[in-house]
Amino acid sequence: MNSETLFSNIKKKKSYLCIGLDSAIEKIPSCLSTSKRVVFDFNKEIVDATAQYAVAYKPNLAFYESRGVKGWSELELTVDYIKSNHPDIFLIADAKRGDIGNTSAMYAKAFFETMKFDAVTVAPYMGKDSVQPFLSFTDKYVIILALTSNQSAADFQYFSSKKNKPLFSEVIDVSKKWGNKDNTMYVVGATKASMLALIRQQIPDHFLLVPGIGVQGGDLNEVSEYGINKQCGLLINASRSVIFAGNQKDFAVKAAEEAKNIQSEMEKILTIKGLL
Amino acid sequence: MNSETLFSNIKKKKSYLCIGLDSAIEKIPSCLSTSKRVVFDFNKEIVDATAQYAVAYKPNLAFYESRGVKGWSELELTVDYIKSNHPDIFLIADAKRGDIGNTSAMYAKAFFETMKFDAVTVAPYMGKDSVQPFLSFTDKYVIILALTSNQSAADFQYFSSKKNKPLFSEVIDVSKKWGNKDNTMYVVGATKASMLALIRQQIPDHFLLVPGIGVQGGDLNEVSEYGINKQCGLLINASRSVIFAGNQKDFAVKAAEEAKNIQSEMEKILTIKGLL
Repeated sequence: MNSETLFSNIKKKKSYLCIGLDSAIEKIPSCLSTSKRVVFDFNKEIVDATAQYAVAYKPNLAFYESRGVKGWSELELTVDYIKSNHPDIFLIADAKRGDIGNTSAMYAKAFFETMKFDAVTVAPYMGKDSVQPFLSFTDKYVIILALTSNQSAADFQYFSSKKNKPLFSEVIDVSKKWGNKDNTMYVVGATKASMLALIRQQIPDHFLLVPGIGVQGGDLNEVSEYGINKQCGLLINASRSVIFAGNQKDFAVKAAEEAKNIQSEMEKILTIKGLL
Repeated sequence: MNSETLFSNIKKKKSYLCIGLDSAIEKIPSCLSTSKRVVFDFNKEIVDATAQYAVAYKPNLAFYESRGVKGWSELELTVDYIKSNHPDIFLIADAKRGDIGNTSAMYAKAFFETMKFDAVTVAPYMGKDSVQPFLSFTDKYVIILALTSNQSAADFQYFSSKKNKPLFSEVIDVSKKWGNKDNTMYVVGATKASMLALIRQQIPDHFLLVPGIGVQGGDLNEVSEYGINKQCGLLINASRSVIFAGNQKDFAVKAAEEAKNIQSEMEKILTIKGLL
């Protein structure tokens, strides 16, 4: 998928919502507890109920790996299900990988060939050769961590040069030359909305993946005000606030209501911005 | 395992060799090709043949994930086999994870509970709360990327502050306060031996995991000269040069010869340094 197709899907669904499948097994409604594939069954119901309101899903790898082979197996089922039944969905592996070249090539193979993800999140600490193997795949995206939504993001991401340039800004300036807006996106936390205007000056055309809406406290309107570009250019992620909106038999209905609420807000914003 | 036990194993084996299980399936000798668990069988033979010369093994997660569920399953078999049959081995998940707190906690669970690794490598870009969940486990280590061995390490790890302090140095100074020498190590590439003297001033007591010996061109004597401390303080990794030393039926014998060569060099160095 490239940015044009993604923007087309955003216009079709009037939404730039990404739903994070942080499907912690201990939080899954007890009505599913007799299932042998409880996480997959949960994801399937959540996706089927919410896909009309979302353009992207983002399984968080840690929640699958924590269960070992069983978790990895249910991740693969989830990926296959979404790709087969909702082919317009942009599917992100939130994996935060990154290693020397020959190793990153193996991670790229894991997420783009063995599993059919459209994108994978990557930590930039090891530089260009840790990112480049992901860029050699056609119609796939690498999503580079720039400014994250956690409290300790400030520990190193604001580490500043002689010219008062923070590390996250250096990461963007250097890495934007490795690829282009059709194979590179950036993670920018919603809790740092005031920084978005600065980041948009550096990368006016790239898509940004914005976590931190919902439980983490980010503000949709503020992020959209600073972050939207002419192709929308935003994928705003909500995880727990959507997928665990309910914990009874109607959990998927509750998730859909929450997703629809966010989609409605997004539709208003897209209309005001003249993008629909 | 803590630093005292690790040093005791180093003295017993007269070795501070870590063998990287970068077990790329396409490089595994064809004599194993009829096996249903080719990577596990390869790892088992390599480990049994080389364990007398090594104190640590380091499966590189990418090479397992690239094969999906099957690869993950053979990784678990490998971990179980090593822990059951070679209980003195220090077992490192070279995973380079790191995410917001609740997600890092899930990664810690994956590597320290679901699998019984002793340590996991972590990228520091997201700061303290991405590392801390790994530190809450007793007798386990987090191994933080400081200065890596790849060419592009310079892209961001040398990004310098007003006072000419490079990022990798800031990462060490800040993160060494989060834990101690019994739960934290650092990755320092062997290709940057000249930097080891500086790093040793910052963290005289911590163990360093040093990749880059062998195929990547690092020098064992030079690294040891700058890096050894009173508990040895080094785990020097060799991967491809050991595990793929042979590609015929005697591949494990060839791997053992290569491991023994490195161990012999290490024994000389430990003797000169007065640590045996």
